[in-house]
Amino acid sequence: MAEAKYDVLGIGNAIFDVLVQADEGFLAAHGMAKGGMALIDEARAESIYRDMGPATEMSGGSAANTIVGIANLGARAAYVGKVRDDQIGRLYTHDIRAAGVAFETKPAADGPATGCSYILVTPDGERTMNTYLGAAQELMPADIDAAQIAASAIVYLEGYLWDPASAKEAFVKASKIAHDAGRQVALTLSDAFCVGRYRGEFLDLMRGGTVDLVFANEAELGSLYETADFDAALKQLRNDTKLGVVTRSEKGCVVASKEGVVAVPAFPVSKIVDTTGAGDLFAAGFLFGLVRGAGHEAAGRLGALAAAEVIQHIGARPQTSLKELAQENGLPV
Amino acid sequence: MAEAKYDVLGIGNAIFDVLVQADEGFLAAHGMAKGGMALIDEARAESIYRDMGPATEMSGGSAANTIVGIANLGARAAYVGKVRDDQIGRLYTHDIRAAGVAFETKPAADGPATGCSYILVTPDGERTMNTYLGAAQELMPADIDAAQIAASAIVYLEGYLWDPASAKEAFVKASKIAHDAGRQVALTLSDAFCVGRYRGEFLDLMRGGTVDLVFANEAELGSLYETADFDAALKQLRNDTKLGVVTRSEKGCVVASKEGVVAVPAFPVSKIVDTTGAGDLFAAGFLFGLVRGAGHEAAGRLGALAAAEVIQHIGARPQTSLKELAQENGLPV
Repeated sequence: MAEAKYDVLGIGNAIFDVLVQADEGFLAAHGMAKGGMALIDEARAESIYRDMGPATEMSGGSAANTIVGIANLGARAAYVGKVRDDQIGRLYTHDIRAAGVAFETKPAADGPATGCSYILVTPDGERTMNTYLGAAQELMPADIDAAQIAASAIVYLEGYLWDPASAKEAFVKASKIAHDAGRQVALTLSDAFCVGRYRGEFLDLMRGGTVDLVFANEAELGSLYETADFDAALKQLRNDTKLGVVTRSEKGCVVASKEGVVAVPAFPVSKIVDTTGAGDLFAAGFLFGLVRGAGHEAAGRLGALAAAEVIQHIGARPQTSLKELAQENGLPV
Repeated sequence: MAEAKYDVLGIGNAIFDVLVQADEGFLAAHGMAKGGMALIDEARAESIYRDMGPATEMSGGSAANTIVGIANLGARAAYVGKVRDDQIGRLYTHDIRAAGVAFETKPAADGPATGCSYILVTPDGERTMNTYLGAAQELMPADIDAAQIAASAIVYLEGYLWDPASAKEAFVKASKIAHDAGRQVALTLSDAFCVGRYRGEFLDLMRGGTVDLVFANEAELGSLYETADFDAALKQLRNDTKLGVVTRSEKGCVVASKEGVVAVPAFPVSKIVDTTGAGDLFAAGFLFGLVRGAGHEAAGRLGALAAAEVIQHIGARPQTSLKELAQENGLPV
């Protein structure tokens, strides 16, 4: 096996975040399920945006946030995702490259605009996302560069890729190339509603060995196995995947492998401002720990640290050096 | 004089802010004057942006920030400024309208893109701005709606309007309409370098009565009268304008009128994150106090309060309800 050029390559829906503070009444009035990610069409995007307050914008996308976090920690990272060649697509391309990520996916020259997520942040810090996929729907198997995938130690895929019709083919193609090259493939289940849409297919990916490592939060795990019994769900997860990592908000995370289960506490935070990106940055820290050979517990602590940073400010991208933060906290970088 | 429909109408360069954290070395390497606003052309914009780190974007523009703050405090506010009909122009239009501001300036259908400012925020919280005016250069006297100006109790203009060639004609036209309707005209000197470019013209505006109220910070005041002697400069300011308000960062502000000088302390802040918008929001609080008939000292305290809110987070628009903040601090709203 050749030495990897990238530690982690992420594939996901490239989404620009439009973040706004809103109260619970706004969610109720617009029929939004708090804490979830709903797919919206252009008409609903316009209607939500019309009613929304003044916003802050920044690049987002689940796997992209994770990959930016990994680069910020000091690892070699690459991203594959589709924007359009429009103003927002150019902001997006700037931000991910400026974070030190290799990003070479050709932007769409026509079709829908760069995808956007209208993110309502309630006073408790919880985020509720309404995503217009836009150009992210144009991600095709042809966008997967076999040499780049084969040169990445871990390929990280988001469950959200199951939403655009052709992206799942790109997903499966990337997984096969990675495995043929002796690499690892990780999947995040992304969102409980997303799991509800693709439960059977996600289980097939896990049981069939298309993915080796699965990230989920409690709600996603419960949705996957259709149970509220955490221990029962965790047991099933251990049967279905080599390595499963379940995040539990302030209760920390659980890392489950064939060898056993390790619980890692959450990192203390003074005030939760916006949970957007919490799971994404947890995955960043954990994957970074894995590629550094840090062991499951230290990887979990790196994940908890990165998640803690991102929930203390608005937006899903780190605003401080995670590398320095890890060093200050005696974690391996 | 008919009752005003708007308490304050602002006219300014409509600018979208691209904010990034940077160290002093970045400023030095790019020949930037820390704390100032430099005008840049498209080539330099591209060169700075290429070297910049990952950014957060949000609507800005000096007078626009002020007007949003005034609306946030609960007054009736309107804005005149030029964007293009592009993606960023649509974000801009959304944000200012969503803040409760009447904004009806027709966007440019061709020509340069919506203006952007690349704002470098150093670890001490100071901001250094590099502004590509873009579509803001297309603001014309024809964009001034005489009825709307005449229906506004205070017309607020930014010195930055002197940069685009035709905007100053719009400025002078608006001032004449306002005065003919018995309204007040306020000016912010905007930036010490801007004052350096237009010193003589700004003094003419003040001495000739085109403006009634002038906002400046210490650096702008020093630049206007080409002196480092604050008291001497303040004395000249009192001669040259009916009402002068000078902000002095952590030293608070000084309100100078023919009757005398009132000093108002700054509002305590726990941590300065980003000073972008500090002067703009000070003006918002002060003008709001004026339209509510609060007296100079209370107006100064409202200004200090609004400035304190905006420097404790990234970006130049308020992230909390200034009205509630003022109420909690026993200030008149």
